[in-house]
Amino acid sequence: MSTRSNFKVKKSVTLSGVMAGNSAICSVGREGSELLYRGYNISDLAAACEFEEVAHLLIHGHLPTLSELTHYKRKLQKLRALPRPLQTILEQLPAHAHPMDVIRTACSVLGTLLPEKEEHSLALAQDIADHLLAMLPSALLYWYHFSHRGVRIDVNTADDSLVAHFLQLLHGGRQESSPLWIQSMQASLILYAEHEFNASTFTARMVAGTASDLYSAVTAAIGALRGNKHGGANECALEIQKRYQTAAEAEKDMLLRLENKEVIIGFGHPLYSLFDPRNQMIKEVAKKLSQEAQEMRLFNIAERVETVMWEKKQMFPNLDWYSAVAYHTMEIPTAMFTPIFAMSRITGWCAHALEQRADNKIIRPSANYIGALPQKFIPLKQRK
Amino acid sequence: MSTRSNFKVKKSVTLSGVMAGNSAICSVGREGSELLYRGYNISDLAAACEFEEVAHLLIHGHLPTLSELTHYKRKLQKLRALPRPLQTILEQLPAHAHPMDVIRTACSVLGTLLPEKEEHSLALAQDIADHLLAMLPSALLYWYHFSHRGVRIDVNTADDSLVAHFLQLLHGGRQESSPLWIQSMQASLILYAEHEFNASTFTARMVAGTASDLYSAVTAAIGALRGNKHGGANECALEIQKRYQTAAEAEKDMLLRLENKEVIIGFGHPLYSLFDPRNQMIKEVAKKLSQEAQEMRLFNIAERVETVMWEKKQMFPNLDWYSAVAYHTMEIPTAMFTPIFAMSRITGWCAHALEQRADNKIIRPSANYIGALPQKFIPLKQRK
Repeated sequence: MSTRSNFKVKKSVTLSGVMAGNSAICSVGREGSELLYRGYNISDLAAACEFEEVAHLLIHGHLPTLSELTHYKRKLQKLRALPRPLQTILEQLPAHAHPMDVIRTACSVLGTLLPEKEEHSLALAQDIADHLLAMLPSALLYWYHFSHRGVRIDVNTADDSLVAHFLQLLHGGRQESSPLWIQSMQASLILYAEHEFNASTFTARMVAGTASDLYSAVTAAIGALRGNKHGGANECALEIQKRYQTAAEAEKDMLLRLENKEVIIGFGHPLYSLFDPRNQMIKEVAKKLSQEAQEMRLFNIAERVETVMWEKKQMFPNLDWYSAVAYHTMEIPTAMFTPIFAMSRITGWCAHALEQRADNKIIRPSANYIGALPQKFIPLKQRK
Repeated sequence: MSTRSNFKVKKSVTLSGVMAGNSAICSVGREGSELLYRGYNISDLAAACEFEEVAHLLIHGHLPTLSELTHYKRKLQKLRALPRPLQTILEQLPAHAHPMDVIRTACSVLGTLLPEKEEHSLALAQDIADHLLAMLPSALLYWYHFSHRGVRIDVNTADDSLVAHFLQLLHGGRQESSPLWIQSMQASLILYAEHEFNASTFTARMVAGTASDLYSAVTAAIGALRGNKHGGANECALEIQKRYQTAAEAEKDMLLRLENKEVIIGFGHPLYSLFDPRNQMIKEVAKKLSQEAQEMRLFNIAERVETVMWEKKQMFPNLDWYSAVAYHTMEIPTAMFTPIFAMSRITGWCAHALEQRADNKIIRPSANYIGALPQKFIPLKQRK
């Protein structure tokens, strides 16, 4: 990466490189491209695991044995059902609502219906994390089908994995997910699960630091992930790719935009200097999905833009760039891209919130005051 | 303050003293005890202003003229009514819910019903801030009376101020608020309105930094304020004061607790070295309220503990200590203390979220990795 673009990225990030606490959960960016979850390389996890294994690693601290995994998946399956008051509430939310606002609301509501006890216990908090992991996809898709089609779906399915459950509810039995779709979603969720002190995770830690409850921490994090500079970027990436009919057209237009110094969403990352290790994996996923669908157009456009960005700016795609291609190929509505990210990142958020809680510290930075000098107070009736 | 207690406070705060951005909103703690909102001394504001003047200062950038204030109060009065779907949703939340969870949920729901436009405009965002300022007290008390008494209250009252509206809805016409109650609540809300990069405000800035919407930022901040190490402290303060029947009993017990190195909530503040400037004002408010009620017991207990804490630990009370006495004397249920703090701090949260948005920077610190070294991945079936 050139010094210039590197500098540009750093300037736009506050607290960049500032150590804001200890963490044993994730190691990122050392040697330019490393990403480990609790010491395990992301490429091993994404290649070999189901998402529930990684969720267990993050929330419960270790990779499960076969029997632990079976037990864990069965537990999550049982937790999918939604409390009746939450269903009623979801039915009040309009079809035009942002799906992230829907899961933010669902998470907040669950905090009133199944509240965390005042005396925080680790085991009970881990149980809340499991509830959110199982319930938020149900809540999202219950709202989606009710608000868009007026249908109250049954959120209990026979699918034994979170991924199959999600695709089943989303596509409403319209078609069966291919084994490649299931496998691709598994890998995608694993890649999105955790990324150290990113903005939404640090937001969760801010909240946990005040000794608030876990629902408050996750609700806050969902709101932070929603922004275009964070999770919202995968939706923006697709918007860019869909602008073009061919790879040649994409190349021509991107060159123009780069000349005009436009910032291209989906590229670069402040923590990686060589490449984003997740990109190689999600690119492979997107390629296989496109091949299976016999529809390479979007993938080819994405790949051509990748080439242009590297040749002209020495910038590499981040996880969002090819996730957009993969999700679109699996017929996932664009508005669901960021909620999928959230479904996965819940695991990282909860792990960090619990770590911050154990650390028992409030987070309270200072401001550099740049405002008015002390002003003379003028009583109301004399103000002009 | 002794070096020892000073050190103790700093150790328990992450990012303490670290500059995490520029701000023109609040100057705090310079010369040991200063607090200015946009250059105006807090003592002038609390002594002379209505809360709406300070809300206007924080959200709209300047102290209003008489005609601006009249217009602003009329606007807020018109915004008090709750959308019908929000009423239905509030009716689903149980009586045992934490009131902070209720307003966190109400704020999130409003983000789906009256969403912010994708193209963020300052004027529209300020308008959302005004909506939240007017609506969240209505939502809180609508839920309170419905869940506790099964009554659907009319949230529209003839009261022209937020404070009178709140007390009227809370006490349900049971009794008229005395002029001193109104005046005391005005002062209390002004003192709670803003305090630089405190944990909930910085949480709001974290969310705004990702370019998310204003509802997400305020929803997150409510969750952060809920914690006992932050806004939840005013509830804890009352619990301490209510333990005792007399000032002498309080003194005797506090001395024992201090010997056992118990941390006493309601005392000390990492940003002030001499005293908390808000304490003098809220103490005077609490004293007058107690005198009017001809019930000095709680005040006397609080004052005796203040003396003990200063003599033994050189620690001074913060805003929460006498706020607890004041609110209790105005017959406000303890569970409402932190929501009142939130009703007021919305103004500061919104001011900071909009400032962060204008700054156009994501906030992304780093972690000090203390976890496992790279571990060899073991496939599922071989794990033991």
